[in-house]
Amino acid sequence: MSQPPIRHSVRIIGIDPGLRRTGWGVIDSEGNRLSFVGCGSVEPPDTLPLAERLLAIHHGLAKVLAEFIPAEAAVEQTFVNKDGAATLKLGQARGVAMLAPAMAGLSVAEYAPNQVKKTVVGAGHADKTQIKMMLKILLPKANPRSADAADALAIAITHAHHRGASERLKAVGA
Amino acid sequence: MSQPPIRHSVRIIGIDPGLRRTGWGVIDSEGNRLSFVGCGSVEPPDTLPLAERLLAIHHGLAKVLAEFIPAEAAVEQTFVNKDGAATLKLGQARGVAMLAPAMAGLSVAEYAPNQVKKTVVGAGHADKTQIKMMLKILLPKANPRSADAADALAIAITHAHHRGASERLKAVGA
Repeated sequence: MSQPPIRHSVRIIGIDPGLRRTGWGVIDSEGNRLSFVGCGSVEPPDTLPLAERLLAIHHGLAKVLAEFIPAEAAVEQTFVNKDGAATLKLGQARGVAMLAPAMAGLSVAEYAPNQVKKTVVGAGHADKTQIKMMLKILLPKANPRSADAADALAIAITHAHHRGASERLKAVGA
Repeated sequence: MSQPPIRHSVRIIGIDPGLRRTGWGVIDSEGNRLSFVGCGSVEPPDTLPLAERLLAIHHGLAKVLAEFIPAEAAVEQTFVNKDGAATLKLGQARGVAMLAPAMAGLSVAEYAPNQVKKTVVGAGHADKTQIKMMLKILLPKANPRSADAADALAIAITHAHHRGASERLKAVGA
């Protein structure tokens, strides 16, 4: 038996964490339709002590969450393979970036980089140019000024796609 | 010209971050005198999604900060050398552990593991047993039930020692 398509809209924030620059992108997802809401990045001055840089990321994201009031969040799951110090830095930013939506009561999904590329471009080994091109098609009104904001939008799209699949499974009682 | 010793008391929280267990230890430091205030650990159930584990660490530390009202915080600076995934996990916990005192307006100092060992035991390659023994001498009333709480107290002691040195330098106008 065929099911009517699900039509309720959900607002999603994607976050691409980084200590120097944390990108964010907000979209609305309604059935298969995506629309751009906003994007940007939080860039704490790297002259600040670490705790204050983390605090700036927290405040920046808390402000975005308060302004756009997304219902769900998604973050990329990644680490730097060779460099322990770089991975620790990324982890610190990521912890804070996941905490902000969790403090606002949002669920926070995680996606591997390959999953993001595969969802947005159709191939797990897509490069940044291909992702940018697909973003222009999927979200024509988006004009991310930084690679991090673009990545954050790609993560939000990935979540829209995957949550949609699981919502449809729920709707058919699977 | 000799200076009178500085006698104002400062309350310090040391934090040993970890996703499974984040240890904390609070001491009062007055001149060269240290006294134990409290210690423990925050242990989020590892069945929770990552964002909720981070939220549990945040809430746990926020509660400790509200109860003991320390004036300064210190965290160990460490990473897992070989394992990117483990370092990312630690980083996430560490980011959240540093954010909590920063949100409460505290400065958050960082110390390398060697520095902690050297301050507490007198040697940079001290083992856990030696640190435990010195803790008993320096803070006789402390009874840390976990290694993480003990490490957190050691970090607090390290900060008491090093901040004291820099305060004395300030007092003589250096």
